[in-house]
Amino acid sequence: MVKAKRIERVAALSKLLADHPYRLFSFSYFCKKFAIAKSTLSEDVLAVKSGLELYGLGKVETVSGAAGGVRFIPGHLPEDDAAFLEELAARLTSPDRILPGGMLYTTDILCHPETVVRLGEIFMLRLQELAPDCIMTVETSGIPLAMQTARAFNVPLVIARHTSDITEGSTVNINYVSGSTKVIQNMAMPKRALQPGSRVLIVDDVMKGGGTAKGMIALAHEVGAQVVGKAFLIATAAPDRKLVEDYTAFFTLHNVDEEQQKVTLEVNK
Amino acid sequence: MVKAKRIERVAALSKLLADHPYRLFSFSYFCKKFAIAKSTLSEDVLAVKSGLELYGLGKVETVSGAAGGVRFIPGHLPEDDAAFLEELAARLTSPDRILPGGMLYTTDILCHPETVVRLGEIFMLRLQELAPDCIMTVETSGIPLAMQTARAFNVPLVIARHTSDITEGSTVNINYVSGSTKVIQNMAMPKRALQPGSRVLIVDDVMKGGGTAKGMIALAHEVGAQVVGKAFLIATAAPDRKLVEDYTAFFTLHNVDEEQQKVTLEVNK
Repeated sequence: MVKAKRIERVAALSKLLADHPYRLFSFSYFCKKFAIAKSTLSEDVLAVKSGLELYGLGKVETVSGAAGGVRFIPGHLPEDDAAFLEELAARLTSPDRILPGGMLYTTDILCHPETVVRLGEIFMLRLQELAPDCIMTVETSGIPLAMQTARAFNVPLVIARHTSDITEGSTVNINYVSGSTKVIQNMAMPKRALQPGSRVLIVDDVMKGGGTAKGMIALAHEVGAQVVGKAFLIATAAPDRKLVEDYTAFFTLHNVDEEQQKVTLEVNK
Repeated sequence: MVKAKRIERVAALSKLLADHPYRLFSFSYFCKKFAIAKSTLSEDVLAVKSGLELYGLGKVETVSGAAGGVRFIPGHLPEDDAAFLEELAARLTSPDRILPGGMLYTTDILCHPETVVRLGEIFMLRLQELAPDCIMTVETSGIPLAMQTARAFNVPLVIARHTSDITEGSTVNINYVSGSTKVIQNMAMPKRALQPGSRVLIVDDVMKGGGTAKGMIALAHEVGAQVVGKAFLIATAAPDRKLVEDYTAFFTLHNVDEEQQKVTLEVNK
């Protein structure tokens, strides 16, 4: 049996709660783990709660009743998030990111763990009231960001594919028209990946015309699920008319001037 | 200025360290954040260290000297990991996962945040001494697991593609032969995604013949990087001779009997 001091127990409790965003732990789980009475646990939970809240690191919620317990919801100081997004904007507008065709190289940012964890948590904080019960994306480049958003909400991720030769059992398939290139494409997902009635939040790296997002919405509808929100790292300013409405984007990409080597990007509050 | 009690500060410190595996925080970063002297911080770090280590939640390392600081390395109790893998094996052998052709439906497991976070950390714990400086996978189903392994090591993820029409700037392309189906396939990655001399750990969901892993090794060699390890969720027992050696797999899939609806899967210690 581990015999710990209170301060050591609080360090462990803080880590365990923070590691599992949105997971409701029963009080008895921790009472057993730490071999303490419920009254002692309540004091420890209060210490973690006020410690994390004092430094803007998230909220600790207690739910009373038989099915109750304690859970952690990630949080950040708004000024820290604003500084993080401004810094990311500065990195994104570096001329060496300009790709032929006026797009930006973002792969390194989308594959950097601390960055996508942070972005996923900011999406969660901005879209909390949508209460999604799953996150949906389409292969490939948006998957890490979508995964970390799923982690921040503690809900499963659903990945749609561009090919229909998936070895994932029976699939649902749709055709959609790309909003920017007007090419007809295919999108598929395993039938059992999404339940009817699910509340789906779409997450992807870039939205131009909105055709891909519209395709995901059609795929979700096909199985009787409901799309409650769409969130992107970057939305391009052009075309002005998108195929989807009511979306969230961290950045608006106004212009990539290949000749002048200049990127114009705006941070959305 | 936030005025916190010691126990509240320790809760916050534990959360901040645990949130950023392998990141070396300078002592002055925390002294400034908490407005405390270095001697006070040292005591707080010791409390977090012993708290997390007492409950098998990871290690806190202090590095002395001018470039020194403190960092957290995730950890689990070996018995907890063994129980977790046994439970996952029980889920994987459920007959409703059997797909035509003798494979298993694993998408839900590979897209469940808490499960892949845990698996990523176990890979890190088992392969720590390889000291990779990046994780590599190929689209699509292994990406969430590879992402969380990258997070546990705090190193970037590199995603290879099966198509060469990537809008990620100039690419490196190779052809490879699938180990199980003997079909020639293409694999590509952005040239700037991987630096010469990098120590690459390959992570994927399933290895059958090893052709895809061999393709990733060729891709890494093409840019002068070195593959230091290969890690999979599942390796199939057949074929016995794989195209790659020295790999790690959580599970060995011995047989999927479609007629008897029986899956034989072994947990690798």
